[in-house]
Amino acid sequence: MATVDVDALATGVRGGDRRALARAITLVESTRPDHRADATQLLDALMPATGGARRVGISGAPGAGKSTFIEALGTHLVAADHDVAVLAVDPSSARSGGSILGDKTRMEELSRSRRAFIRPSPSGGTLGGVARRTREALLLCEAAGFDVVLVETVGVGQSEIAVAGMVDLFLLLLAPAAGDELQGVKRGIVELADLVVVNKADGDLAAAASRTAADYANAVHFLRPRHRAWAARVLTSSALLGEGIDEVWSAIVEHEDALSTSGELIALRAEQASQWMWSEITEGLVDRLRADADVRADLVRLDREVRAGTVSAAAAAQRVLRRFLGSGA
Amino acid sequence: MATVDVDALATGVRGGDRRALARAITLVESTRPDHRADATQLLDALMPATGGARRVGISGAPGAGKSTFIEALGTHLVAADHDVAVLAVDPSSARSGGSILGDKTRMEELSRSRRAFIRPSPSGGTLGGVARRTREALLLCEAAGFDVVLVETVGVGQSEIAVAGMVDLFLLLLAPAAGDELQGVKRGIVELADLVVVNKADGDLAAAASRTAADYANAVHFLRPRHRAWAARVLTSSALLGEGIDEVWSAIVEHEDALSTSGELIALRAEQASQWMWSEITEGLVDRLRADADVRADLVRLDREVRAGTVSAAAAAQRVLRRFLGSGA
Repeated sequence: MATVDVDALATGVRGGDRRALARAITLVESTRPDHRADATQLLDALMPATGGARRVGISGAPGAGKSTFIEALGTHLVAADHDVAVLAVDPSSARSGGSILGDKTRMEELSRSRRAFIRPSPSGGTLGGVARRTREALLLCEAAGFDVVLVETVGVGQSEIAVAGMVDLFLLLLAPAAGDELQGVKRGIVELADLVVVNKADGDLAAAASRTAADYANAVHFLRPRHRAWAARVLTSSALLGEGIDEVWSAIVEHEDALSTSGELIALRAEQASQWMWSEITEGLVDRLRADADVRADLVRLDREVRAGTVSAAAAAQRVLRRFLGSGA
Repeated sequence: MATVDVDALATGVRGGDRRALARAITLVESTRPDHRADATQLLDALMPATGGARRVGISGAPGAGKSTFIEALGTHLVAADHDVAVLAVDPSSARSGGSILGDKTRMEELSRSRRAFIRPSPSGGTLGGVARRTREALLLCEAAGFDVVLVETVGVGQSEIAVAGMVDLFLLLLAPAAGDELQGVKRGIVELADLVVVNKADGDLAAAASRTAADYANAVHFLRPRHRAWAARVLTSSALLGEGIDEVWSAIVEHEDALSTSGELIALRAEQASQWMWSEITEGLVDRLRADADVRADLVRLDREVRAGTVSAAAAAQRVLRRFLGSGA
């Protein structure tokens, strides 16, 4: 991607051209400064075409059957005439080699559908960077006409919060309880969930799944609801047998309708967008400070002194800020 | 605290004067710009006197018996000729009214000891702000001669990470497993723990405590160790009966000795200090940007457009940065 014709790319994306969409996502994933400038221009050109999808975050502990669940949900949606994009936030994908979604064979049936678009997690970088690029990819998918975007995340804490900050509904997928506390899901993540789905409700685990669902239904009852118009709900599914999938989708639709009617959906999206602007501003400030030649020399020395414990972190930070912003800082 | 004689305060703190220490902590907790400047000067004056304590973070789910445990451990240490400071990080303390440590009667015996110093969590502000002030209070306690600092945190996710970033050893306190997944502790938090203690190993719960300890011992075995010189260990205790407390303290000492010998303790503290400098720099940059009059007018307009979805977060951020830093940004 040497030179980019942003206008042509925008037209391609808006026309639903899959190859243009893939190239556009590659552009927003690039960290090259000229690419970032092009990406910003592309996004601005496409902003009026965004906002049309149901944005669903899906998280779950390893072993909950997330790939099978997304495959089942995605296939169900495609059959019901939806266009489905699947994105992922997995900051560990570079380290762990095989990314969560790197291997499309994980979702073999869905990946063969012409109405589905599966994109692995951007690799490398901080969670903030990975999440930012995924959020921009989500906007591009909307501009390309997808009416459902599923954002998958590995269940490791921080990334759930990032994903919850870019979707309308956050779905937490669980396995039937094994009675092992270590498989537990932290209360904080449960509090993010608009919908809890206990998967693997089949065969030997059917009874355990019902029990787990009842436990969670009881538990979420005590959590403060995140929205006036929606109380968190608990369902069971068997992605393997395709059971409970349509009920999950109905709940997702019901949630979005309720939040639309109450005005909370528009407020939620506005608040999310504003928070993303602030995270862009923050990351941009730090990037520019790090790139400043004057500051860099100071930083090396101060970092050494802070590490040695001879200068406090607060004092070092103030000196760096004064150097970067001038005496007014 | 209208005007501060920083030199006198530093002398008082270094002399172990409790009232001077309390005033110094109040100073670092203040957000007034002149107080921040004094606080930075005070910290710099005291930096050579810091570093002498064992820094121990203690986290645990509600119901694990954290207050009783800290009371038992603190009393044990005071009896063994240690000077013990107890600090807390609880960003919710302002909201929930009664802070985790606001009520010293929670630790009645310990609070009566002249060798103990108990300070509630700074109230209000973001987690970042609360954690920063607690970290500075930790340094002040060291300068005042305390050789053990216990930093307590409520078990709600983000604050554990902040506390783990300021201590040498992170202790996770658990109740015997109740078989309820919602009481589970997230894998990510378990991964932070150098020491897992299953408390309430008494009476009816003794058997369950042993089982839970065995389960965790098996589980932590599979986690990647955080240090070369130390593998996470699981113990049981009954804070109520005072049983197992000396074994916990022995493990803490053993951990610190092992990390000292391997050179990892000095490296850990250096890395933590550097990270705190970066978080100070980041917060300082954003504060100064928010305070810039030129930027503020732009921000109001851009925030509105971003919320309405007519401008992308990336484009708005770039415009704000250019306004703040000049055309070079």
